[in-house]
Parts: sequence; C-alpha cells; structure tokens
Amino acid sequence: MRSIWLSGPMGSGKSSVGPILAADLGWDFVDIDALLEARHGRSVAALFAAHGEPGFRALEREAVLAQREASGPAVVALGGGAVLDRETRRGLLSSGVLVTLRAPVDELVRRVGSGEGRPLLAGGVPVEVLGALLSARASAYAECHAEVQTAGRTLESIAREVRSIASCPPVVVPLGERTYRVEIGRGTAARLGRRSVEAGVGPVVVVVGDVNVADKVRRARADLEAVGLRTTEVLLPAGEAHKHVASVEAIWDAALEAGIDRGGAVVAVGGGVVGDLAGFAASTLLRGLAFAQVPTTLLAMVDSSVGGKTGFDRAQGKNLVGSFHQPRFVLCDVDALSTLDPDERRSGLAEVVKAAWIEGEAAVQALEANAEALHAGDPDATLAAVRTAVALKARIVSEDEHETGDRALLNLGHTLGHAMEAASGYAMRHGDAVARGMVVALRVGRALGRGRLEDEVRMVALLRRLGLPIDPAPFLDAQ
Amino acid sequence: MRSIWLSGPMGSGKSSVGPILAADLGWDFVDIDALLEARHGRSVAALFAAHGEPGFRALEREAVLAQREASGPAVVALGGGAVLDRETRRGLLSSGVLVTLRAPVDELVRRVGSGEGRPLLAGGVPVEVLGALLSARASAYAECHAEVQTAGRTLESIAREVRSIASCPPVVVPLGERTYRVEIGRGTAARLGRRSVEAGVGPVVVVVGDVNVADKVRRARADLEAVGLRTTEVLLPAGEAHKHVASVEAIWDAALEAGIDRGGAVVAVGGGVVGDLAGFAASTLLRGLAFAQVPTTLLAMVDSSVGGKTGFDRAQGKNLVGSFHQPRFVLCDVDALSTLDPDERRSGLAEVVKAAWIEGEAAVQALEANAEALHAGDPDATLAAVRTAVALKARIVSEDEHETGDRALLNLGHTLGHAMEAASGYAMRHGDAVARGMVVALRVGRALGRGRLEDEVRMVALLRRLGLPIDPAPFLDAQ
Repeated sequence: MRSIWLSGPMGSGKSSVGPILAADLGWDFVDIDALLEARHGRSVAALFAAHGEPGFRALEREAVLAQREASGPAVVALGGGAVLDRETRRGLLSSGVLVTLRAPVDELVRRVGSGEGRPLLAGGVPVEVLGALLSARASAYAECHAEVQTAGRTLESIAREVRSIASCPPVVVPLGERTYRVEIGRGTAARLGRRSVEAGVGPVVVVVGDVNVADKVRRARADLEAVGLRTTEVLLPAGEAHKHVASVEAIWDAALEAGIDRGGAVVAVGGGVVGDLAGFAASTLLRGLAFAQVPTTLLAMVDSSVGGKTGFDRAQGKNLVGSFHQPRFVLCDVDALSTLDPDERRSGLAEVVKAAWIEGEAAVQALEANAEALHAGDPDATLAAVRTAVALKARIVSEDEHETGDRALLNLGHTLGHAMEAASGYAMRHGDAVARGMVVALRVGRALGRGRLEDEVRMVALLRRLGLPIDPAPFLDAQ
Repeated sequence: MRSIWLSGPMGSGKSSVGPILAADLGWDFVDIDALLEARHGRSVAALFAAHGEPGFRALEREAVLAQREASGPAVVALGGGAVLDRETRRGLLSSGVLVTLRAPVDELVRRVGSGEGRPLLAGGVPVEVLGALLSARASAYAECHAEVQTAGRTLESIAREVRSIASCPPVVVPLGERTYRVEIGRGTAARLGRRSVEAGVGPVVVVVGDVNVADKVRRARADLEAVGLRTTEVLLPAGEAHKHVASVEAIWDAALEAGIDRGGAVVAVGGGVVGDLAGFAASTLLRGLAFAQVPTTLLAMVDSSVGGKTGFDRAQGKNLVGSFHQPRFVLCDVDALSTLDPDERRSGLAEVVKAAWIEGEAAVQALEANAEALHAGDPDATLAAVRTAVALKARIVSEDEHETGDRALLNLGHTLGHAMEAASGYAMRHGDAVARGMVVALRVGRALGRGRLEDEVRMVALLRRLGLPIDPAPFLDAQ
C-alpha cells in the first residue's frame, strides 16, 4: 500500500486522525508542521513570519518531497496550505492516497479555538478568515482521492473510513472543483445510489442504456430508487448507427417528461456510444445537468468514460457535434465484463496496449506478464489493466482538458485506425482498427528513422497474444 | 470623459505612453508607482522588500482608490500588479476606461533591461520570470476595455489608439480570459471583419440570420470576406416557432459542409431567436467554436446578446435545451434598429425599463428624461439606454455566469410575463408581457408590504410614455 496523505484546513483533524490511522496500519505517523518545527527549531508561526508565505511554502514543499521519497509507507498530516502548490498536489496524487478532511466552517472555528500558533489566523476574525481561506482553496482541496466529512464523528470512525478508501483508491481526474473519481473494481456498479446521493443530485435521474444492457439499466434504476431518487430510463437501439441526434432527442424528451430540474442527473450505463450520447444530453438539458458514467464494455472503461468528450455523428462524419462535459463520477465494474462478447473485449484491449505504450516500460511489462489472462478475461488482470489505462488518461485529461495539446498523444494508432474503420463502413471494430493503426504507425515511424525494429516486433507480439489483428493487408486486399 | 487607466506588465510602456496621452487630452498624468515613492520616500523595490507583496499591494490599492475619487479625469499609469486584486480591477472597469498595453515577452525583456528597481525581477531570469508572471496574470490583464499591442509602434500612435478607444469605450463583460466586449454605437456592425481577425478565427465563418435580415447577413458576409475569411450563410425562417432543433441542424450541416475546422466561428446576425440558435450550434460544433453576436433588434441588444445563454425550445417548454457559451464579441449597431418594426422596438424597451429599475435612481431618471425620444426611436437616446441595460447585465453576468444566484435578479417581471406569453400561445410580445409582469410584480410586492405606491405609479407612467401596456386585464378578459 502507498502512503496516505491527510490534507484539509486547520482544525479538520489531520493531526488527530493521523496517529490513530497509523497505529491501526502499523505505519509511521509524520506531521509535516511538527517536522518543520523540529528541523528549524522554531514554531510554524515563527517560520511563517520569518520567511513570509512563499518562503514557508518552499520549506514545506521540500519536506513533503523528502517524505515522498521515504522508504516505507506512512500516514502524513500535511500543513493546511501544502496542497496549494500544483506540482506538490499532483505529485501526492500520483505517489500515494490523498484524502481531504472536511468540516463546516463553524465547526472548524470551534476546534481551532483562539487561533494561537496558526499563522494565517493571527489577528483575523476566525469565521471570516477561515471562510475566505476555504473558498480560496476550494479547488486545491477538491483534487484528492476522497473527501471525508468529520463533523460529529469519532476519530476512530474517520480513521476507518480513510483506511477503507486507501485499501482500494479510485483514479482521480484532477480538475479543480470539477475533480472526479473513477472507481475500478468488482461490484462497483452497486455504489451508484450512494455516489449519487453524495453528489447531491435529484430528485429525478435519467438512466440511459441500450437494448443489450436492459438488465443493467434495471439494476441501476433499482439502486437509485433505493436511495429515494425518482428515475426514468431510455433504452436506445444498440450500435454506432444510432449515434445521432434522434437518440439525443429521445433522452431530452424522457428527461423533460419526467419533470427533471436543474438538480437532476443523467447516468450512462453502457458502451461508448451510450456514454457519448447521454453525456451530450446531460450537457445540454436545462443548459447542463450532472452526469455519471457506468461503463459496461472494456473499451468504454479504458477510453470514452473518462475525459468528458461527448457527442454524436452527422452525415459529414463521426463525432462532429458534441461538447466537453465531465462526469461527476465513473464506476468501472469489471464484473460487468463477464458477459461481454469476446470480440468486444478484444477491441478494448487495443486501447489498453496503446495506454501502456504511452505510459512506458513498466506498464508494457505488466501487460506482457498478463497477456494470456487478459485474453481469457480474467477479472483481476483486467482490473489492473483498466487502472493503468485510466490513470494515464486521467493524467493527460487533467493537463489538457479540451485537447489543445498533449491530449493528442492519445491518438496513437488512431489516425490510420479511423481511416480503416470509416473505409470499412464501420464493419471493422474500433480496437481492431487501432491495433492495425499502431503497427502501421510504428512502421511509418521507423521508415522516417524514428523508431526501433525491436519495438515494432514487441508490439506485434503483444497484440497477437491478446488476439488482436496486426496486419492491415487482409482488409486492404478486400477493397 | 472618464479617467484612463493604463495597465500591463513591466515594460509595456504605461509610463511612456501616459504623459503623451495626458498632454494630448490636456489632463493630468499620474504614475501610481512614482506617487507611492514620493509619498513614502522610498523606491518601489524598497517598499516591496519592506512590506512584502501583500503589504505593497495594500498601499497600491489605497493609492488607486484615492485616485478614483479625484475630481478631474486623468491618465493614470498603474503598477504592473495593481489589477491582480479583483475588487480594484472591477472598480477601475466601472469608474473609467481600463486599457492593457501588450508586447511579446522578448520585447518586454528588451525594454526592461537589467530589471533594476523592478522588485519582482530581482535575481530572476527575466524571460522566464516575465513569462511566468504574464501567464499567472493573463486572466487579470484580459479584463479590460481594450488590449493594445505596442510592439514596433511609436508612443504617439499608441496614445492615439488609446484615446480613440476611450472616446467611445465598449461595455466589458469581465470573465477572466473569456472576457469580451460589447460595442454599442452607430455603424458598429461594420467592424465585424476587423474584430473577427483580432479574435483569430478562420478560415471558415458561418453567418446565421433569418429571412427578415437577409440584407444584413449579406453585408456581414461581405465584411468577413473583405478580410480574407471564407463564409457561408444560414437563413432560418423567422420567429419563435422555428426555435427548435431542426434549425440548429441546418446550422450544423451548413458549417460542416463548408469544411469548418476548430478555428472556425459562427456569427449571429438577428434577434434573440437567431442568437440563441446560432450560439447553441457554435457551442456544439466540433465540441465548441468561437461565436459572435451582431444583434439587430433592441430586445436582443439589451438582453439575449450578452450573457452566453443559448438554446431552443422543446415540446415541453421554451429554452429547455441549451448551453452557456459566451460570445467572443458583440456588436450593437443602433442604426440597425431604424428599420425595426415599432412594436418590436417597444418590446425591447420593456427590458430597458427593467434594467434601469434594478440599476437605480439615476438610470430611471435618465429614462424618464428621454422617454419620448426613446418611443420615437431616436438613435442617441436609444444608444444611451442600450448602454445602461448592457452594463447592468454585464455586471451581473460576470458575478454569476451560470445563473446560480444574483443573475435571477434579471427576472423582474418575467415570472408572470412568461406565464402570460405562454398562455397567449406566444401571440403576446415578450416585452409587452414583461411590462405587464413588472406592474403586477410591484403590485404583489406592495400587497406583501414590500413596496411603495409611488414606485408603482412611477413605473406605470414610464411604461405608458414608452408605449408599453401596463394592465394584464385586457388579456385576461380575452381568455
């Protein structure tokens, strides 16, 4: 397990919860403020006064980085402002589990008391100062693996919740106050009701699926209704041929007829086509409603469910109309894949290979070690592969939400892949086209003097073991 | 004329352009940095070192506020960081003309030289430090009446451009880097080509209008083509009855068939229906294209062209599908109203009254002083009224872009107004419904003990002079 970083404003309980959690796990507890005081022989308030805020933040960053490099995992209480630095924050997200402790501002004030020893409270009116601090820091605090409410709870119960989060942390897509989490596991789809309540949506939720996942749509509605939400459903005909505005209109009308208001939400249960259509409908209903994804195909889990791209096709081409609309949460339930058509699963594996290829050596090796298990649909191997692909996508999306730069990296194998898909009249599966496209891309790269033969050989071998096609020739011959 | 505030990073030329501009106008020139140095007897660098950045900013804010209260207009060179404080920046926008001087970073470095006396450059690598400063300040610098490029120009030519901007400043909708300007005047529609080039759009621009403004659409296309852009047009059938998805589809398809790419733009030439449809199409084509508004009705100028609400109707009700998508610029050409149907103009005046009512006593008095001229369609009176209404809307939109709070203020008279419009099957004009709605709202308020009879009498008198209906009775009788 990786270190647990406790973040949150002064008074949120980091230094009280931390030791209990550390004892429970048998780990060290480190309090960054205490560590700085010991190292410099002065109180945090004195360090702050002597160095000014920027100087203090630099000392703090250095201490946090040193702790990241420490050998064993630890429970670390961060200073209240430590996550304000973007690089520090993103580093903590990728190297451990970052949990923000929360409490209402009046509760924080009660706990902080006189503000003694709290540099930013010196001389201020606590409620006002704390309120202003919280709102200035809202987007930094939101970028975490989980936010845990602490008001009215025992330290032990808070520690237990943090431990449970850390045992299987979500992948975070850090986008300030629009940060969301992708939960990858077995049985995660059953969390739909709870997560919807936490997201504060309601009273009406529209569940969108296609005729192939009618049973999963029914289960999603039951989960939502069990927590008191009103639901309606839209079952679209299956397939890319129905990715057009008429399907979006069906969602708009079902939502409006169910009396949806600005608190309502749209939930997509299905593959990429369902997710793109439902996401677009959510982004445009009443000028933008909350949206959640429960992908049921491997391709949707590793690709379209994360990143907020929505849209549909026009006669002039694919995905020409759409929006960027990030989901509030994504639930990837690997168990949902057990009934997936093997060809459909194979298609998703091409995107997994692409992600590993971009990610680097360790990720490629992990795939190579598990190729046969993945091919056979083993849930644990699949879970790990989904996590790698989603983590890469999350990182790239958070750097380039609207695809103006780096996000184009994710197009490896897609330029030729899209062309082959289109030329086949979309008879060729997306993943098969991407696999072929990647091989050709490496070959073209090599012809341009920018790649090594052994990389191409390695890619071809891996794709073969996963049951993916590697040669565009049979298709080209058929034209 | 109101004071001119020159903003921009160090080296942008504020202290060099300022005196020339002031001499030209016969005004005082004030350099806030020089004023602080004189007042405190220390250099800006020394003040910065002694007080830290927050302390220095407080001194600076105080000096700027004092200057705002000064009697005559002046040309004021601000410190490079003065506009970082949101309250200061918004205050300058509303109390004068705020112009940001710009130059490429290498040019700034050349001008700044060694960085001596520049507190934030001390010890840094100028290009890197300046680049980082500019990107950290981008959204503060963008909130201004105009950005003026200074590279390769004489100080005199820069001063002339600033003077010309200040002689008829636009209304600014301050939204960080998405800030845009509403130009209100006579003949302003002819600036379409120039503004599109400045916004960097192209090569394809779609101009959307309705059959009633075919001539204006033709002129807009000619303006755009004169600056080298490729255009296509969509002429929709006129009226609210066509505010549905089929009209949006016509825009999508025209744009896609013209080969639009992510650099393309959609321009709305027309009333509110055209603006809402074209804005929605822009927000969804290729997941979001640039958009500009050239409103041709009084109602669109004072209401729908500012604020970024787009959308269309469904069978279940009006504007149920849409998005928030701010325009890049808005050109309100009062001359376009000369051919407007008098009933259509009257309808727009209701929103003007609403805006003045929310704005306060001075705005209401200005309307009362010009009621007959407005009723007769006098361009100068209309121009002033449009400016008041747009300025209010800009302020409210910048505080509450997605209508979660204050923006609901703008609904005065609209609750009942919408109900009357709907009950009439939209035979009643929007403005007539709003006028009646406002009277009833004041009456209801009074019944609840929250208004004064004289306010209601005053509202009724003003609406009457503007030719607006004041009594819902005739309509209710007809049911």
